[in-house]
Amino acid sequence: MSTKEEITKEIEEQGAEVRRVKGDKNSTEEAKKEAIDKLLALKLTYKEVTGQEYAAPNARQSKPKKEEKPKQQPKQQEKKQDGKKQTLLGVGTKKDDNYSEWYSEVITKAEMIEYYDVSGCYVLRPWSFAVWESIQEWFDSGIKKLGVKNCYFPMFVSNAALEREKTHIADFAPEVAWVTRAGNSEMAEPIAIRPTSETVMYPSYKKWVQSHRDLPIKLNQWCNVVRWEFKHPTPFLRTREFLWQEGHTAFANPADAEKEVFQILDLYAGVYTDLLAIPVVKGRKSEKEKFAGGDFTTTVEAYVACNGRGIQGATSHHLGQNFSKMFDISYEDPAKEGERAFAWQNSWGLSTRTIGAMVMIHGDDKGLVLPPRVAAVQVIVVPVGFKTENKQSLFDAVDKVTKDLVADGVKAEHDLRENYNAGWKFNHWELKGVPIRFEVGPNDLAKNQGTRST
Amino acid sequence: MSTKEEITKEIEEQGAEVRRVKGDKNSTEEAKKEAIDKLLALKLTYKEVTGQEYAAPNARQSKPKKEEKPKQQPKQQEKKQDGKKQTLLGVGTKKDDNYSEWYSEVITKAEMIEYYDVSGCYVLRPWSFAVWESIQEWFDSGIKKLGVKNCYFPMFVSNAALEREKTHIADFAPEVAWVTRAGNSEMAEPIAIRPTSETVMYPSYKKWVQSHRDLPIKLNQWCNVVRWEFKHPTPFLRTREFLWQEGHTAFANPADAEKEVFQILDLYAGVYTDLLAIPVVKGRKSEKEKFAGGDFTTTVEAYVACNGRGIQGATSHHLGQNFSKMFDISYEDPAKEGERAFAWQNSWGLSTRTIGAMVMIHGDDKGLVLPPRVAAVQVIVVPVGFKTENKQSLFDAVDKVTKDLVADGVKAEHDLRENYNAGWKFNHWELKGVPIRFEVGPNDLAKNQGTRST
Repeated sequence: MSTKEEITKEIEEQGAEVRRVKGDKNSTEEAKKEAIDKLLALKLTYKEVTGQEYAAPNARQSKPKKEEKPKQQPKQQEKKQDGKKQTLLGVGTKKDDNYSEWYSEVITKAEMIEYYDVSGCYVLRPWSFAVWESIQEWFDSGIKKLGVKNCYFPMFVSNAALEREKTHIADFAPEVAWVTRAGNSEMAEPIAIRPTSETVMYPSYKKWVQSHRDLPIKLNQWCNVVRWEFKHPTPFLRTREFLWQEGHTAFANPADAEKEVFQILDLYAGVYTDLLAIPVVKGRKSEKEKFAGGDFTTTVEAYVACNGRGIQGATSHHLGQNFSKMFDISYEDPAKEGERAFAWQNSWGLSTRTIGAMVMIHGDDKGLVLPPRVAAVQVIVVPVGFKTENKQSLFDAVDKVTKDLVADGVKAEHDLRENYNAGWKFNHWELKGVPIRFEVGPNDLAKNQGTRST
Repeated sequence: MSTKEEITKEIEEQGAEVRRVKGDKNSTEEAKKEAIDKLLALKLTYKEVTGQEYAAPNARQSKPKKEEKPKQQPKQQEKKQDGKKQTLLGVGTKKDDNYSEWYSEVITKAEMIEYYDVSGCYVLRPWSFAVWESIQEWFDSGIKKLGVKNCYFPMFVSNAALEREKTHIADFAPEVAWVTRAGNSEMAEPIAIRPTSETVMYPSYKKWVQSHRDLPIKLNQWCNVVRWEFKHPTPFLRTREFLWQEGHTAFANPADAEKEVFQILDLYAGVYTDLLAIPVVKGRKSEKEKFAGGDFTTTVEAYVACNGRGIQGATSHHLGQNFSKMFDISYEDPAKEGERAFAWQNSWGLSTRTIGAMVMIHGDDKGLVLPPRVAAVQVIVVPVGFKTENKQSLFDAVDKVTKDLVADGVKAEHDLRENYNAGWKFNHWELKGVPIRFEVGPNDLAKNQGTRST
C-alpha cells in the first residue's frame, strides 16, 4: 500500500490536474467529473491510510463537520446552525445548479440519512427505511408466489470458498473486507465479509443436490453486504455496506433457469414502475459489464434527468453452469446413465440504491418527493388558523380525519405541534416529500370540509 | 495468544481431567459438563490458532464431516449415508439419553440448519427461517403499535465510539471481531463489527436531541450481530453471528422509559407463550448478570425439561442515564434554566436463539415439533393407498383440500411425490414437525372425508 507521502504527492498532482481541466474551455463535463472523482478517491485513500482527513497545506481551514464540533461550543449555537429553524429555508441548492450538493442536502434535511464516522457507511433513518420496507414487502410477496423461500446464510466466507470461482473473485477481491482478529487473538486464517453470497451458498447447494428431484432450489435472503470501495462514496448510491436481497436458484434445465431470470427482471421493473413511479428500460449488460462468472446479466436501467445519465436499477443474472461446475452442484444424469449433470443457476439482487434513484429522479428544489406507495406518511393532516377559543374543536377534527384515513388503510399522520406555525409545517412536510397535505381550518370546520394540496 | 504447543498441552491436560471427572462417582453432572465444555473451548481455540481440527495423537481417526468427504468417493455412496433413505430411520438418539446429540440430529435432519465451514456460523434453512419470519411479523407489528419505527445503522463501529462506555465495552471486548484489511490494503484504524449497537447509535441520538421536544426517540432494527465467542458453539443457542432485533429508545423522563421496559418484556413473553407455546417467567437479572452499562435488566426465562435448566428468552434493559451521559444525549432542562437534562434510555433484544429454545422444549424422539403459529407448513396433505386406476382422482382431491385450506388462511402443502410411499412421507413430515397431517385415501374419497393426525 502507498505511504502517506506518496498519496499526498498524488493528491497534489491530481489537484493541479483538476484546476487545469476546470480552466480548460475545451474540457468536457465528463472529463471534469472524472478528474474530480479521482481526486476524491485519492483523498479517501489518504483517510484510510492515515486515519485523518486530507488537509491541503495552504488551504482554508475547512469547516468542521457537525459530529466533530468541539465540545466546549455552547449547544444553543449548534441549534441555530443545524436545528429546526434552518429547515424553514428548505433546500439551499437548486437541483439544476449542482445536483450533487442538492442531493446531499435533500437526504439529510429530509431526515433520510445521518452521516457516520466510518467513511462510506451511513445511517438509514426511519424516513428512508420505510421506503425499503415497502419495497421489501412488495418484492418478497412477488418472489414467494414464484416459489422462492427465504433463508439466511452466514456473513463470513472462508478464503477457500471465496476463491473457488476465479473470474468471480477477481472482480470482487479488491473490495473485500477481511476480519483478522477476534478480541485480542489474531485468527489463523483471515475471514472475508460477503460482498455477495454465491461462494457462501453454493457449497451447501452441492450437499443438497443429490438427484434431479432435489431441483429446483429457490432461495432468497435479505441481508447486508460489504464492498469496500475506494471511490467517492455517496449515500444509497455507492456505500461500503448496503442492504439488499439476493436470490440464488438452481434448476435441472437451462430453459427453466432462463425463464426465471426474466420473471425476476419483471418484478424488478415493477419495483420501479409500480412502487417508485420511475420508468425503466429492461435490457442485457454488455460482456464487459456483466456479472463476473455468469453467462449473461439482465438489468433494469432508469434515466436521471438532472445529470443526463442512466442508473442501474437491479440485475438478474443467469450463471449458466459456471458455478455449478466449480462447486460441483451435480447429480446423476437421468438421461445418460453414468454421467453427471450440472445444475443451471441464477442469482439476482436489488439493493437500497433504489432509494437513491428515487431521490435523484423525483426530488425537486423544494426537497424530497415521495411516491405514494412507498411513503412512510402518505397524508399529513395540519390544523391551520387555530386560536385559543377554537383549538380543541379544531384539533379534535384533525384527529378524526386522521383516524378515518388510517382506518381506510391510508398512512396518515397529523402534526399538532403548537410550537410551530402552519407555514413552518407546510415547508417541513414538503421538504420531507409527503404526497398529500390535508389542511383543516376553522372555516372548513364550519363547512365540514378540508383543503387538500398535493 | 497461545501457541499451538501450549494449547495442545492444555487440551491433553483437560482431556485427562474430563476422564477423571467422568470416572469419579462423586462428580456432579454440572462438574462433568463444565469439564467437557472447557475441553471443547480449548479445541475451538486450537482450531482458531492452527486453522485445523485438533486430533489427539493416538486417537481413533475421527469420522470426516460430510463437507470434508474426499471428492473421489462416489456420490452414490454418499446418498446412502446421508441421503433421504436415512430419514426413514428418524432420529437415532433419544432426547433423554443425550439431549445434545439429539439436538444436533433434529436440527439437521429436519432441515433447519446446515453446517458451515466457518466455525460458530450456521446456515438457517427455510424451515427454520420461516419460524423467524413469523416471530418478526408478530413482534414488529407489536412494537409499531407502541410507536417504534424501524431503521438501519451501520454494522461497523469505530474504536473511538466502541470504547466510549467503559463498563459496556469491558463486557464485549473479548468477543469483538475486527476488520483490519480491505482488498490488499491494511486499514489505518481497525474497525469493529457490532456486537450490539448502543455505541453505534447513540452518537446520532446526541445529534438528534436538541430539546425535550425531540424526545422520545423510539427506533428498532432487525440485523445481524457478531460475538466471537470461544466457548463451544451450538446452532441457534450460541453462535458467532446471529440475527436479532434491537430496540433503542430515549425518553425525557424515567417513568416513561421504565414503563416501556415492561411493555416490551410483555411482548417478549408473548412471543414465547402466544407464538411458540412456551411458558416463561418474567423477572429481573441479578447485578452480576445484568447488561453491562445499564441500570437494570429484565428477562423472560423458560424451562428446558431435558436438561433441567433455565434458558434466557429475551432481555429488556433500562439503561438509565449511563449512556446518555457518556454520549451527551442531553438538552436544556425546561424545568431548571441553564442546566442540562440527560435522556433516559432503554435497549431490548430478541434473537434467533428463540428457535433453539423451541426445538429443545417441544422436540421429541420422533423429531421436531413445530408450534402451529410459527410452522412453515401447518398442514401436510398426503394421498394414501393410490393405485394407477384411482391416482388422478385421488391427486385431484388432495389438491382441492390443500387449496381450500390455503384459501382459508392455513399454511397447507401437499406431498404428491410418487417415488416415496405414504409411510416414508409420514415419517418425513413427522421428523420435520408439521403440526397436522391430513391423509386422503380411496375410501375417504368415496365418503368425501379425510383422516387428520396431529
